[in-house]
Amino acid sequence: MRAEIITIGDELLIGQVVDTNSAWMAERLNENGIELYRVTSVHDDREQIVAALDNAFSRVDIVLTTGGLGPTKDDITKHVLCDYFGTQLVEDAVVRAHVEELYKDRPEILNRLTATQWMVPAAAEIKENRVGSAPLMIFHKNDKILASMPGVPYEMKIAMDEQILPYIQNYELQITNYESGHIFHKTLQVNGIPESSLAIILEDYENRKPAYIHLAYLPKDGIIRLRLSSYGEASMTEMDEWFGRLKDLVKDYLIAETDEPLEVIAGSLLKKRGATIATAESCTGGKLAALLSKHSGSSAFYKGSVIAYSNEVKEHVLRVPKEDLDRYGAVSEQVVTSMASGVRELLQTDYAIATSGIAGPTGGTPDKPVGTVWVAVATPQKIYSECLHLGKLREQITDRACTKTLVKLIRLLQS
Amino acid sequence: MRAEIITIGDELLIGQVVDTNSAWMAERLNENGIELYRVTSVHDDREQIVAALDNAFSRVDIVLTTGGLGPTKDDITKHVLCDYFGTQLVEDAVVRAHVEELYKDRPEILNRLTATQWMVPAAAEIKENRVGSAPLMIFHKNDKILASMPGVPYEMKIAMDEQILPYIQNYELQITNYESGHIFHKTLQVNGIPESSLAIILEDYENRKPAYIHLAYLPKDGIIRLRLSSYGEASMTEMDEWFGRLKDLVKDYLIAETDEPLEVIAGSLLKKRGATIATAESCTGGKLAALLSKHSGSSAFYKGSVIAYSNEVKEHVLRVPKEDLDRYGAVSEQVVTSMASGVRELLQTDYAIATSGIAGPTGGTPDKPVGTVWVAVATPQKIYSECLHLGKLREQITDRACTKTLVKLIRLLQS
Repeated sequence: MRAEIITIGDELLIGQVVDTNSAWMAERLNENGIELYRVTSVHDDREQIVAALDNAFSRVDIVLTTGGLGPTKDDITKHVLCDYFGTQLVEDAVVRAHVEELYKDRPEILNRLTATQWMVPAAAEIKENRVGSAPLMIFHKNDKILASMPGVPYEMKIAMDEQILPYIQNYELQITNYESGHIFHKTLQVNGIPESSLAIILEDYENRKPAYIHLAYLPKDGIIRLRLSSYGEASMTEMDEWFGRLKDLVKDYLIAETDEPLEVIAGSLLKKRGATIATAESCTGGKLAALLSKHSGSSAFYKGSVIAYSNEVKEHVLRVPKEDLDRYGAVSEQVVTSMASGVRELLQTDYAIATSGIAGPTGGTPDKPVGTVWVAVATPQKIYSECLHLGKLREQITDRACTKTLVKLIRLLQS
Repeated sequence: MRAEIITIGDELLIGQVVDTNSAWMAERLNENGIELYRVTSVHDDREQIVAALDNAFSRVDIVLTTGGLGPTKDDITKHVLCDYFGTQLVEDAVVRAHVEELYKDRPEILNRLTATQWMVPAAAEIKENRVGSAPLMIFHKNDKILASMPGVPYEMKIAMDEQILPYIQNYELQITNYESGHIFHKTLQVNGIPESSLAIILEDYENRKPAYIHLAYLPKDGIIRLRLSSYGEASMTEMDEWFGRLKDLVKDYLIAETDEPLEVIAGSLLKKRGATIATAESCTGGKLAALLSKHSGSSAFYKGSVIAYSNEVKEHVLRVPKEDLDRYGAVSEQVVTSMASGVRELLQTDYAIATSGIAGPTGGTPDKPVGTVWVAVATPQKIYSECLHLGKLREQITDRACTKTLVKLIRLLQS
C-alpha cells in the first residue's frame, strides 16, 4: 500500500516551524511496509486543504494529515474534514471524559474553547490521543482511509505508534487479505572518499545489480551514507547478498554497517570496552555533549563535559597552560590537546574529545581563517590531534567538527 | 507573486533526512514579499518529478526545486529538467573552470563523474554555486520561472541569498513593473497561560480585526507564539496598530515582542547588563550550552558550562556536597541549587543556570517519575529554583527543561 502525508499549517509555509514530523512518519511507514509517495505542506486554508486531499486520494490509498486541530480560530482542519466527508460535529462522551481527566489539575483550561475538542465528526472513527486534547480521527472514502493527527510532534508520535499504524495494518489485512510486501532499506556509512570517486568504484556494481534494488548516495559533513532499497520486489536474502557485496567494495572506507548516528556507534563501542568518555568543547559549544547524552542509556559511558567557551575556563578549569594560550592561541594543537587531557583528568574518564576552532562569522585571521578547527581525541594511551578546515558557515563548521571528531573516535575505538 | 517549493529525494520520503530547507526558504521568500503556496516532497523518480512540476506551474509563477543534482546515478533532476524543457546538455566552460578551481587541491575528485557537473541544459540560465560543484539552473516557461538548486543546506542557502532571490526580484520587476506587495509577519511570545484561555481573552480582538489580518497561535513547550500576518493587503501602520493592541491584551504574559529564539533574547538582556552566564547541566546534557553558543557573538556573555552527567562530576567538579547527593538524590532542590552556585563560582560568571532531572525512559520512581526536572537560576543576588513535570518523552522533557529555564532567566533579567 502507498500513503501520502499532508501537513497543514501556515507556520510551515512561512518558515516559522521546520516540519520534523514527515521524516519521522516516513521512517515508521517504511518500517511497516507502506511506501510514502509524496509529502505536501499546505496553509490553514479550506480551498488548499481540499485540493490537497483530492490530489492525494487520486494517487494513494492512505492519507495522513497532521496539524490544524487546536482549539483556536486559525485551526480549521476538523471543520474542513467534516465538510469534505459530508458529516457534522457531535459531542463525544469518551473524548470529553478524557479531556476532563487530562486537565483535572488545571481547571482553568476546561473553558468553552477546550470544550470544542470533544465535538467530533459523526462519520469519523475516533481514537484516543493519550497525551493531548485533540482526538485522532479516521475517515473512510470507498476503500481508502484518511487519518488526521495533531501536529505537535510528541502527540503525533504516540498517535502513530499506538493507534494509526496498528489501525492501517489491520485495515490493510481486511481489505487485501494479505500483508504489505516488505520494504527493505539497508544503509552503510563510509568516510574518507569523495562521492564521485566512490561512484566510480561502484559503477560496475550498479550496472550489475537488479533494477529493483536501488542504490542511493547521501553525503553529509564528509560522511557518505550508501542506502540499498527495495519496495517489496526483492527477498531479504537477495538484499543481504547485494549488501554484502557493497560492503566488500567499500571496506577500506567503512565506518558502520547501519544507519545509526555516529554518537550511538561510538557509544556502543565504548560500552563494549567498559570505557567512559568526556568532552572539552570550545567552538562546538556543547553540541558534542548534547549528542552523546541524547540517547537513553548514555550514562553508561558518558560522564560529562566542560564547555570552555572562554579562555579563562580553558585555563582555570581545564588547566590549559596560560603560556600556550598566549603563545599559540586558543585554536592550536597545544591547546586542544591540553583541553582533551585536562578534561580526561578532571572528569576521570578513559577517553576524551576536544574541539577548538573559529566558527565565525568573525574572529578569522589570515593564518587561521574562519573554519579552522583543531580537534583532539585522548585515549588511555595517547592523544591524537588534527587541524581541519571546515567551510565558511557557523552551523556547518560546528556540525562538521562534531562529525569529524566522532569519526576519529570511532576509528580509534575500532582499531 | 507566489511560489512553490519541490524538494526532490528518496531520503526525504523514507525519513532518512529531515527537510530543513523548506522552512529556511519559506522564511526568505516571505521576507522578500513572495508568498509560499505549497511545499511538495517527491522521490527521485521521473514521473513524480514531472507531475509535481506540472502541478506547481498550474498554481504559481515561481517554482523552486532542491535536490537531485549530485554526480551519482540516483540523482536525476538535471536530466528530467532537460526533457521537461525540451533541451539538452552542453558543456559550460565557466562551470568547468569553477569546479576545477574548487577541487584544485584534491585532484582525485576531478574524475569523469564530477565532469558531468559542468554539463548543463542549453536552455537554462546558469548561475554559480560558489560553494559546490552543481551549478544553479534557471528555466523559463512562458512568464513563469523555475530555479533548481542543490539540496545540501548550506549550498542552497548561499544560492538563495546570492543568486536566486535577487534574480526573482529583478525578474518580477521586469514582468510586472512593480514590486511585490509586502508580506508582514509580526510575532510576539507569551508564557504562563493555556492556549484556549488566551484565545478567550483575544476573542473580541479576533472578531474586530480586519479579515485580511490573520492571527495564528503556535504553542510549543509552554510558550505560545502569537503571529499576525498580512499578505500585502494591510499597511505597515495598520499592522503596527493591531500588533500594539494585541501586545496590550497579553501584556501580563508577554516574554518578547519578536520571534527571536529564547536564547537570543536572554543573550541580549545579558549583554545589555554587561553580565556573563554559565550552565551546569545534568539531564539537558549540553543542550542549553549548545543553544547559548549557537549564535554568533555569544562569547560576549557566555563563558562556558559544566555538563555533570554523572554524580562524580557534580561532586568533584561542581562541589555539590556528597551528603546532599546521598540524602536527597541528584534530582533535588538541594543539588540543583548547588550545581548553579558551583558553576557560577567555578566559571566566575554573574549568572548561572542548572538542570537536574529524569529524562527517561528509565530511572523514574514513584516519588520522582520520569519527567521530573529541577531547574535553578543563580543571579548575583539569589538562587531561584523550581520543580517541573515535563511529560514522558526524553526529547520533549529535555527541550521543555531548556525552554522553561530560559523563560525563568528572561523573567529575572527583565525584572
